[in-house]
Amino acid sequence: MALTQAVERVEALTFDVFGTVVDWRSSIIRELQAFGAAKGISADWAELTDAWRGLYQPQLARVREGALPWTKLDDLHRTSLEELLVRFDIHGLSESEKDHVNRVWHRLDPWPDSLPGLRRLHARYPLATLSNGNVALLVHMARRAKLPWDAVLGAEVARQYKPRPEAYLVTAELLGVSPDRCMLVAAHNYDLVAAGQVGFRTAFIPRPTEYGPRQARDLAPEQPFDLVAKDMVDLAGQLGC
Amino acid sequence: MALTQAVERVEALTFDVFGTVVDWRSSIIRELQAFGAAKGISADWAELTDAWRGLYQPQLARVREGALPWTKLDDLHRTSLEELLVRFDIHGLSESEKDHVNRVWHRLDPWPDSLPGLRRLHARYPLATLSNGNVALLVHMARRAKLPWDAVLGAEVARQYKPRPEAYLVTAELLGVSPDRCMLVAAHNYDLVAAGQVGFRTAFIPRPTEYGPRQARDLAPEQPFDLVAKDMVDLAGQLGC
Repeated sequence: MALTQAVERVEALTFDVFGTVVDWRSSIIRELQAFGAAKGISADWAELTDAWRGLYQPQLARVREGALPWTKLDDLHRTSLEELLVRFDIHGLSESEKDHVNRVWHRLDPWPDSLPGLRRLHARYPLATLSNGNVALLVHMARRAKLPWDAVLGAEVARQYKPRPEAYLVTAELLGVSPDRCMLVAAHNYDLVAAGQVGFRTAFIPRPTEYGPRQARDLAPEQPFDLVAKDMVDLAGQLGC
Repeated sequence: MALTQAVERVEALTFDVFGTVVDWRSSIIRELQAFGAAKGISADWAELTDAWRGLYQPQLARVREGALPWTKLDDLHRTSLEELLVRFDIHGLSESEKDHVNRVWHRLDPWPDSLPGLRRLHARYPLATLSNGNVALLVHMARRAKLPWDAVLGAEVARQYKPRPEAYLVTAELLGVSPDRCMLVAAHNYDLVAAGQVGFRTAFIPRPTEYGPRQARDLAPEQPFDLVAKDMVDLAGQLGC
């Protein structure tokens, strides 16, 4: 299918990361199960993982709405973790164990298509994160998983979380590209809608198991985004990479 | 030689770029000579290059001192270029030709030891730019030269030019590392002194021909920096990489 002129003018690709590039849920459940087994702690680790991610948007909302000053995601994750350790009746972790568990978000595995697709896209386009993750988290994740980012940008450099416009606009400005020559690749409708509202081009990739077997949202694009791809390799193909 | 405890605790390496990693002077002279030959423009391109870099610190000073609001380096370079085209009696360049010439700063070649050294350092440490160059400039340079940065940081994300403390401190904060666990690698004494004053560890690499055959400064370290290396490969060796 021929690309539209708007898509042909794209000069940089930006990526949502949690869910779009990496499979946070399986990665975290797997690591927490191993951690529990090693420490002799039993808990419903899948439920804890879902509860942890469940606190994500409420935590970001506190920053977006000004109830909290700028706070990076590592620190929001840590606040949520403390709450969940109480709720799940997990006691006696040392400070360094809690820090290790909190940094599981730095050790997420990519979906199987992510690396092959990103490598092809990287040959032609500058690739940047446009994530709510903080820079250190994303750098550690990228080094471990070999994600070929040219720049690690997004919420922390803008000091505002998506879907607030600043997160998208500051990222485009730092890439030296006008918003209409940036494309956001994401698995979440709300993110792409917000990016589109500030002029970004948009590419939807469904990740129908991101939230587990009972996922009910983001199974399909809800707006006419510029591109819809089956996965990252399909996106590379559609963009002629 | 055994490393000091302070150096052993370093968790991230940050790099000055112009002069330390890339040989801006030879790269620019070579490209401008070719440009002049292709366009039938004769000028003393080495002198123009030196004059262009000569306007660098005065331009940065206007931003550092508040005479100019935050302005990225590409735009400061462009203002200087306009002045130099008049001074060197070069007329008739189109807007796109001027933009192409200005972006020669995106197309600088590394010193011969830079890539081999950086690749070894990258295997062990996260590597980030801590440059006065803007993010897009550094991204384009890194893609062309295959520089293995994990993050492109420095003045633009801090919105303040080195040697102001913010440039160093914001970079360390984004890397998630306290300043005393960051090392700055640079070929310029003033830069390392400023980094050291905010707690960074420091590594000096001399680049005695950065400013051409008559270079008179930065030929040797002027303070007791944490490390002094012959080049980037020697630095990798000293750090056990």
